[in-house]
Amino acid sequence: MRAVTLEALLAAAEAGAAVFDLRPAPSHLAGAVPLSLEALQRGALPDLPPETPVYLVCARGQVSELAGLYLEAAGFTNVHHLVGGLRAWVGRD
Amino acid sequence: MRAVTLEALLAAAEAGAAVFDLRPAPSHLAGAVPLSLEALQRGALPDLPPETPVYLVCARGQVSELAGLYLEAAGFTNVHHLVGGLRAWVGRD
Repeated sequence: MRAVTLEALLAAAEAGAAVFDLRPAPSHLAGAVPLSLEALQRGALPDLPPETPVYLVCARGQVSELAGLYLEAAGFTNVHHLVGGLRAWVGRD
Repeated sequence: MRAVTLEALLAAAEAGAAVFDLRPAPSHLAGAVPLSLEALQRGALPDLPPETPVYLVCARGQVSELAGLYLEAAGFTNVHHLVGGLRAWVGRD
C-alpha cells in the first residue's frame, strides 16, 4: 500500500479515480465516496476491478490504512492512503 | 483576488509560496503560516513585496476573502484564497 499526499489524492479525485472517505458522515472530501470500515469488515467491497487505483482517506490515517489492508487481502493491488490522515494536512480532522 | 482549489493551494505551499492560514491556532495547514485577521485589521501586514503571490485559507472562505481584501487595499497585487474554505474541500473546517 502506498502513502500519498493530500495534493496527490485530490488530483486523483479530480481525475475521476476511486477515492473513498472513511470518516463518518457528514464529513466528505470533495470528490470522494463515503466508505465504512465496518462494511468492509463484513466483506462489502467496492465494486471495482482489483487493479483499479484506489485512494483512501480518514481523519488520522489509521482507519484508512486498516481499510487498505482489508482491500489488499481481498485482492486489490493498487491501494493508496493519505499518510497521517486529514489532521496531518489541514490541522483538524 | 482569485479563488483557487485546495490542490492548487497545497501545490503553492509545497513550492514555497506564501500560504497563510487564517484559522485560530492550533489548526494549521501543512506548509502554511498562521495569520490573524485582527492583526491585519490593525495594519500588521506580511513582510513581503506587494507582487508576491499570496494564498489565504480559512474554515469557510469568508475570513480568507476579507483578509484578501485588506491585503489588496494595502497594495498586494497577486492574492488568492481557497474558495469555500476547508469545509468545502474536506467536509469539516
